[in-house]
Amino acid sequence: MHLILNFSSKIVENAVKALSGFPGVGQRSALRMVMFLLKRPKEEVEQMAYALQQLKTELKICKECFNVSDAEVCDICRSPNRNHQLLCVVEDMQDVMAIENTAQFNGLYHVLGGIISPVEGIGPDALKITELIKRIENGDFKEIIIALNATIDGDTTTFYLARKFSQYPELIVSTISKGISVGSELEYTDEITLGRSFLSRIPYQI
Amino acid sequence: MHLILNFSSKIVENAVKALSGFPGVGQRSALRMVMFLLKRPKEEVEQMAYALQQLKTELKICKECFNVSDAEVCDICRSPNRNHQLLCVVEDMQDVMAIENTAQFNGLYHVLGGIISPVEGIGPDALKITELIKRIENGDFKEIIIALNATIDGDTTTFYLARKFSQYPELIVSTISKGISVGSELEYTDEITLGRSFLSRIPYQI
Repeated sequence: MHLILNFSSKIVENAVKALSGFPGVGQRSALRMVMFLLKRPKEEVEQMAYALQQLKTELKICKECFNVSDAEVCDICRSPNRNHQLLCVVEDMQDVMAIENTAQFNGLYHVLGGIISPVEGIGPDALKITELIKRIENGDFKEIIIALNATIDGDTTTFYLARKFSQYPELIVSTISKGISVGSELEYTDEITLGRSFLSRIPYQI
Repeated sequence: MHLILNFSSKIVENAVKALSGFPGVGQRSALRMVMFLLKRPKEEVEQMAYALQQLKTELKICKECFNVSDAEVCDICRSPNRNHQLLCVVEDMQDVMAIENTAQFNGLYHVLGGIISPVEGIGPDALKITELIKRIENGDFKEIIIALNATIDGDTTTFYLARKFSQYPELIVSTISKGISVGSELEYTDEITLGRSFLSRIPYQI
C-alpha cells in the first residue's frame, strides 16, 4: 500500500520528501527523521545541511588516485610516509576506507569508480583504467595489487586489468588472497581477514 | 563493537557524522547515504540541504493550535470550512496527520506537544494545557474530543484534562472510542479503525 500523508505544512512535507529519497528510507522513517530534527537545536540542523551541501560544493576527486578528497591531490597521494612504488587498485571510496582500517597496506591507491559489469552495462571505458595505465607509465611502481570484490564482476575486472598490465613485464601484479569468502563484498569483510588477505597476496596468473 | 571508519576526506566524514545523528542510523548507513548523495545531481543535494534548513528557519508553530505551520496561524485554524465549535486535543503533529488522513473529523486541533509522563518526567506544565484552557474560555467550543494514545500516559493525560474541563459544565467532553487496540499508538492505527473511533466517540466519565 502506498502511504499518503496529509501534511499540514509544506515545509515539513518538503523535508520528508527530500529525506525519503534516500535508499531504504520510506515516508514514515523520513517523517521520524524530521520530527527528530524539529527537536534539535537550530545550529545542529544548519550544520547538517551545510555538511550535505559541502559534499557537492567542496568535495574534490583526487587527480592522482580518483578517491574523494578535500584538496586537488589527496592526503594519501601527497604523503611522504607512503610507499609510492606500491599501488592498490580498488573499486570505490569505501574500499579505500576498509583497507586503511586494516593498517596492513602502506602504498597508494587507484580508485576505478566501479567494476566491469556486463549485467549493469558498465564497460572498461566507464572506469578510470586509461588513467591507471597512464599513471603506471609515468610512475615508478614496482607492484600493483588488485583488490576487488570476490564476485564474478570483480574477477572479470581483475582479469581484464591483469591482461593490460602484462605489457609491463617488470611490474609485479598481485591480487589479494581469497581469504575473504567468495561471493562476499570487500567492504563487509572484518579487518583481520582483509588484513591477512593483503599479507598473503599472490602473483596473478593469467 | 564500535566501528571506527578511516575517512580520507573531512568533508565526507562531517556528512557521515551529521547523518549518523539520526535515530536508528549508524555510521554504515550514514556512509551509504553519503555515497548515494555523491551520485546525485548537485541541485538535488542542495535542495535537500535547503529543505532541512527551512525546518529551523521558516517553520512556525501555529499560535492558535500549536501545530507546525508555514504561517502564523495554520491552514486548519484559518479555514472557514472547518467546524470552529469542535476541538480535538492531540499529542503531536503526527497525530494531526493521522486524524486528517481519516477524513472523519472536521473541527480544529489543539496540539499539546507531548503527554503527561511521570516516567519521563513530563508534567502538565511542559504541555500546552494553560493555552488550551485559555482557548476554551475565549472560544466558542461546544465539544472537546480528547484523542490521545491508548497507553497509560495517554489515559493519565485524558483523565487530567477531563477533570480540568469539568469546570465548564456546558462543554461536551468526549474521548475517541477504544476501537484502537489498547497499548498501541495512535499514529500506527489504520485509517478505518481510527476513523470509526471518531464516529463512535463516547462522553468521558470521571
